[in-house]
Amino acid sequence: MSDLVVVGSVAYDSIATAKATRPRVLGGSASHFSVAASFFARVKLVAVVGDDFDQAHLDFFKSRNIALDGLERKSGKTFFWSGRYSDDFVHRTSLDTQLNVFADFSPKLPLPWCDSEFLFLGNIHPALQLDVLGQVKRPRLIGMDTMNFWIEGELPALKKVLERVDVLFINDEEARQLAGEHNLPRAARGIRKMGPRSVVIKRGDSGALLFHEGGVFAAPAYPLEEVVDPTGAGDSFAGGFMGYLAQATELSPQAVRAAMFYGSVLASFCVEDFSLDRLRRLQQSEVETRYHAFRELTHFEDVIL
Amino acid sequence: MSDLVVVGSVAYDSIATAKATRPRVLGGSASHFSVAASFFARVKLVAVVGDDFDQAHLDFFKSRNIALDGLERKSGKTFFWSGRYSDDFVHRTSLDTQLNVFADFSPKLPLPWCDSEFLFLGNIHPALQLDVLGQVKRPRLIGMDTMNFWIEGELPALKKVLERVDVLFINDEEARQLAGEHNLPRAARGIRKMGPRSVVIKRGDSGALLFHEGGVFAAPAYPLEEVVDPTGAGDSFAGGFMGYLAQATELSPQAVRAAMFYGSVLASFCVEDFSLDRLRRLQQSEVETRYHAFRELTHFEDVIL
Repeated sequence: MSDLVVVGSVAYDSIATAKATRPRVLGGSASHFSVAASFFARVKLVAVVGDDFDQAHLDFFKSRNIALDGLERKSGKTFFWSGRYSDDFVHRTSLDTQLNVFADFSPKLPLPWCDSEFLFLGNIHPALQLDVLGQVKRPRLIGMDTMNFWIEGELPALKKVLERVDVLFINDEEARQLAGEHNLPRAARGIRKMGPRSVVIKRGDSGALLFHEGGVFAAPAYPLEEVVDPTGAGDSFAGGFMGYLAQATELSPQAVRAAMFYGSVLASFCVEDFSLDRLRRLQQSEVETRYHAFRELTHFEDVIL
Repeated sequence: MSDLVVVGSVAYDSIATAKATRPRVLGGSASHFSVAASFFARVKLVAVVGDDFDQAHLDFFKSRNIALDGLERKSGKTFFWSGRYSDDFVHRTSLDTQLNVFADFSPKLPLPWCDSEFLFLGNIHPALQLDVLGQVKRPRLIGMDTMNFWIEGELPALKKVLERVDVLFINDEEARQLAGEHNLPRAARGIRKMGPRSVVIKRGDSGALLFHEGGVFAAPAYPLEEVVDPTGAGDSFAGGFMGYLAQATELSPQAVRAAMFYGSVLASFCVEDFSLDRLRRLQQSEVETRYHAFRELTHFEDVIL
């Protein structure tokens, strides 16, 4: 099992759906990623929180064996985001974003972590992602996430990051925006020319597509009858994917395909409750059970006619 | 190999996309279905055309061994539809619909065809679909298609048809509309209560989901870099699906899963050119090659860690 460093946001979220609201619950890209990945790997978290951050959340991270030496605690308030989902969860409206201590975030990896073999750059300013790349030595695998906000406003910096990562996790609309191309296979081809050997395009309840040198691989989404809160699904996917690979013996094409399924598994659990509540009570055995249910979803023996 | 009867429309289509237009090409649900199914089964076509219908199209059907005893030729013009696709193929606008001889269509199965084991009711008025159900004896498998127009305007008749069919092919938006439920697994459950043991929800470039007593099965769409004309993709899917099952030795769960893939294979070829032009030059060996490419898209061996 290898070490997996994640740099991103730890936040308070206030979430409103058609059925319920949850004020000031644990959120942030690095929170979801870390906990999802912790089912597979030794996770090392680099982020910043304010002095309002609840000790219970830190205890939760510790209970998942997530190393917190890189979690800075600063005077001020923790990053806060508030959003509302449409009844069908298709649309999300940001109601409020307060960067707070995150505004001056300057990620610092504890020295021993700079040797880590796996690195995930959560969805933060590309300049910060670049800064982290300057701190690490020679990771075996670097994954990253980004969003429309950086594609629109920080494209030159973003492109510098893209040149230096192995796997980009991105949703379908952002992939189209980044490549300037609606067709997803062509968009993925365009993005791979920018640097990443592999592009994982997340499509919500339509599953995820992996484009890499071996061609294309499709992982379905698990058809859930009840979605409670989609916040963090993408980060949970990346956490399951990167975490699985960090424990795999080699980065073989088969391991990467399994990683696509484990990513989908963790994302499917994430959306079953608010915040990290489902992952909080998730058992390792449930991860394996759902992995096999996912395999059943697409698996069959060829029939000889 | 069993006989497969299809009842539906044979039409002239005028298609406009961002890149090209094609006036008065061969179209219609039964045309696409028949030709796709003909790669597997003995297809028997029940439809009506006008006296303007080109003999070359009849010769094409014959070259695919499609029996035409049920294809009525009436004085007047063939059903005509004209439509335009948005640049990204996401939206389609109907520009013109002229029912012509189709307005008085009253499907009549030649007597020997009433014993056929497989029946597909294309997207026509539910009253006509019911009429056909009164003509057949005891098919092993009945599939049907429908559309928003009948869900909105002919729901009581449509529900009578649904009570008597085995497989409903429907797209995601129509499934939501029919069930009054946005969540697809719940919508499928609601529709299965209306009659069909199996519901196949087609999601365009997100693939297709099969909901049946064995649970759920997901078939991806083939990620194509170039889509030329999506017209007929759904009918080609149903043709590949039903045609494959008509040649299968038994309707086992494994055969149904393979049918989902063969449906996707035929749909993926359909959209590569206008009208039935890609299917016209399609070789049996290409069907098998793409089937294996589809299998590769989702297949992997479990990795032991």
